[in-house]
Amino acid sequence: MTYERPQFFHVMQYAASADRDVVDMVSGNPDWEPPAALRDGLREYADAEPAEFQYPPSEGLVALRKEIAARRGVDPDRVVVTNGTGEANYLAMAAALDRDAGSEVLLTDPVYPYYTGKAELLDAEATLVPTERDGSVDPARFREAASDETSLILVNTPNNPTGAVYSRETMRELAAIAEDVDATLVADEVYDRFDFTGSFESALTLDSDRVVVTSGYSKSMAITGFRVGYAVLPDRLVGAAKTRHMLVNVAASRPPQVAVLRALRETDADYYARVRELLRERVATFADALDAAGAEYTSPEGAFYVLARFDGFPGTMGNAKRLVDEAGVAGMPGETFGSAREAWLRFALVTPRVEEAAARLADYFG
Amino acid sequence: MTYERPQFFHVMQYAASADRDVVDMVSGNPDWEPPAALRDGLREYADAEPAEFQYPPSEGLVALRKEIAARRGVDPDRVVVTNGTGEANYLAMAAALDRDAGSEVLLTDPVYPYYTGKAELLDAEATLVPTERDGSVDPARFREAASDETSLILVNTPNNPTGAVYSRETMRELAAIAEDVDATLVADEVYDRFDFTGSFESALTLDSDRVVVTSGYSKSMAITGFRVGYAVLPDRLVGAAKTRHMLVNVAASRPPQVAVLRALRETDADYYARVRELLRERVATFADALDAAGAEYTSPEGAFYVLARFDGFPGTMGNAKRLVDEAGVAGMPGETFGSAREAWLRFALVTPRVEEAAARLADYFG
Repeated sequence: MTYERPQFFHVMQYAASADRDVVDMVSGNPDWEPPAALRDGLREYADAEPAEFQYPPSEGLVALRKEIAARRGVDPDRVVVTNGTGEANYLAMAAALDRDAGSEVLLTDPVYPYYTGKAELLDAEATLVPTERDGSVDPARFREAASDETSLILVNTPNNPTGAVYSRETMRELAAIAEDVDATLVADEVYDRFDFTGSFESALTLDSDRVVVTSGYSKSMAITGFRVGYAVLPDRLVGAAKTRHMLVNVAASRPPQVAVLRALRETDADYYARVRELLRERVATFADALDAAGAEYTSPEGAFYVLARFDGFPGTMGNAKRLVDEAGVAGMPGETFGSAREAWLRFALVTPRVEEAAARLADYFG
Repeated sequence: MTYERPQFFHVMQYAASADRDVVDMVSGNPDWEPPAALRDGLREYADAEPAEFQYPPSEGLVALRKEIAARRGVDPDRVVVTNGTGEANYLAMAAALDRDAGSEVLLTDPVYPYYTGKAELLDAEATLVPTERDGSVDPARFREAASDETSLILVNTPNNPTGAVYSRETMRELAAIAEDVDATLVADEVYDRFDFTGSFESALTLDSDRVVVTSGYSKSMAITGFRVGYAVLPDRLVGAAKTRHMLVNVAASRPPQVAVLRALRETDADYYARVRELLRERVATFADALDAAGAEYTSPEGAFYVLARFDGFPGTMGNAKRLVDEAGVAGMPGETFGSAREAWLRFALVTPRVEEAAARLADYFG
C-alpha cells in the first residue's frame, strides 16, 4: 500500500514549528464547547458499576442505537455505531465493494483525501468526477462516469472542502444512477448540523435500499476525539457491515457512547443554532477580508470551510508554507483535494482567531 | 464472507432467556473494580478544555505511547494504540499478510474464534495446529505445519481457553520458525497480568524483528468496554499498521486513553496481585467442585478460564444449553474453539458466583 498520511499532518507540523505566531486554519477540530450534557454524561459514567465498564453490544449500546434510529426514522437494526464517521465510511465502502459488483468507486473532485485512501486500502479503483465551479454536483457527469465496474458512489454533503449542500434532487439522481449500475450510494452527512441554507435533507429521506448514510458526533458535538459515529445501512448490507465491525473493532468504546447518548437526549436545538450563528459570523468576517485581498472565494452553504483563490498564488504545498511563514496563517493547499482546486487554498473556520487571520490575509494580499 | 458471529452471543442469549437463575460463566468480562485512578482519570477529563476533546494523534496520545514503550522496553515509534486488543490483532495480521509472503495463518487448536474470523476477513487460509493435552505448544508441530505459504503464526499466551502459559523457549522457537519461512509471529499477551506461574515472559524479550506483541487493558484493568489496546511492531511492519489504523479508525477514542494513562501511572502492583489472588481462590473453589463431580479439568497457569470434561457429556452446543436448563450454569461448548476440545466445556471465572456455580456442577454431575 503506497498510501501516505494525509497532508493535513504535514501542514500542521510545519505551522507548529514555525518561528512566528500562526493562526491554524488547517485542522477540522471545533474550538467551541461541547454540549453541557456530554460532560455530565462523562461525570456520571465515572461512578458507574464495573458491569457498565464492560463490552457494549458490538453494534452499539441498544439505547443509543434506538435514539439514533428514532431521530433518523429508521429501524434500529439498520444502525451500526462505529469508531467515528471514519469507521462508518470504511464499513460502508467495504460492504458495497464486497458484493463483487465491480471495483470502481466514484468520488467527487475536489475530494476528501481519506476517501481515496480508504478506496486504496480496499483494493478499489477511485475515479474522481469534477464538481461545478460553485461546488455543486451535476449528476449527468456521474451518469457518464458510471459503468458496470462501478460498485460505489461516495459523496459528502454538506461538503468538505467546497461548502456545497447537495440538493435532494441531486441525491435522488445519484441513487438512481447507483441503482442503474447495481452500485451503492454512500452519503457522508457528518456536517448535517452545519447547514446554512435550511434546505439540507438527509439521503435517508430517499428511502432507497441503494443508499447508506454515515454520520457522527465529532463535528456537531465538538468531540472529534471521542470517535462516535454511525452508519445506517439497507438490510442487504447491514449484516456485512456488522460482521466487519465486530472482527476489526469488537465494538466502539463505551464511555463516549454513554456521554453522547446523554448529550443527544438533553441538548436542545439552541445549542446547534448558536454554533451555526457563530460560524455564520466567522464566514462573514473572513469573506470581508478576502474581498479586501481581492480573492475569489466560496461562500459555504454548509460545513465550516472556505476555499479561496489568490491571483498568482496557486494552492501548492509550497505556497501553503509560504503563507505560514510570510502571513502567519496556515491553510490547506487545494492540490491535496484532487485536481479540481489546485489553484485554491482551504481555510477551516474552527478557530476563535478568524478575524486576526482575515486581517493578516487582507494585509498580505491586499 | 460466510463468517458468523462467535457462538458466545448465542450461549449468552440462551442463558439470559432461560426460565431459571443461571450463573454466567461464558463472557470474558471481569466483574471486579477497575483501578481507582481510572475513575479519577474520567472525572478529571470531564472538566477538560474543548481542545482536549479533539483528535488525538492517530497512533495514540504521545504520553500514553511513551508510557507503554517505557514499560515494554521499546521505542515509542513501534507502538500503535488501538481500539482494544481486537484491533491490534487485526492490524498485526493485516500487516503480516500484506507482505505477500503467503496467505496461510497458523493458529493453535483450540483456538480463540475471533482469530479464525479475522483470518477469513483478510482472505487468509487458517490452519489449526493441535496443542498438547495440557494446553502447551510443541513447536515441532508448528515447524511441520509451516511452509512457504505461511505468512503468520498467531498465538495467545497466557492462553484462552486452555490457561496455558507458553515458555520463553517455545516462543523463541516459534519466532525462529517464522524467520525460517519468512513469516511473522504475533503474540497476543492480553492476559499477561494473569500469570499464576510467575514465569511468564513477553515475546518482546526475544528482541526479534519477526515478532509483534499485542495487548491491552480490557482484562488487566477490568474495562473490556473501553477499547484501549496496543500493538508493538517491528520497524518493517509498523508503518503499514499505522496507515491501516488511520484509514479504518482515524484514531482510538481519546477519553479512555486519558483514563488508562492515569491508571497506568497511579496503580501499584498490589492492585494486580489482589486480582490474581481472587482468581486463584476461584480456581481452587471451582477445582474442588470439579473433583467432586468426577470431571477432568485444566488447572490454569494463567488467564481466567477452566476447561472441564465430564464423562458422557461432550462440549456440544446442545450440552451447553442443557447445562443452562438443568444445572443453571452457562459455559462455552468446547466445539466452538476448533476441534481439539470438542469433549470439553470452558468456564470463565469472572463472576462472584463461582462457588455457587461449582456447587451446582458438583450436584448435577456428582
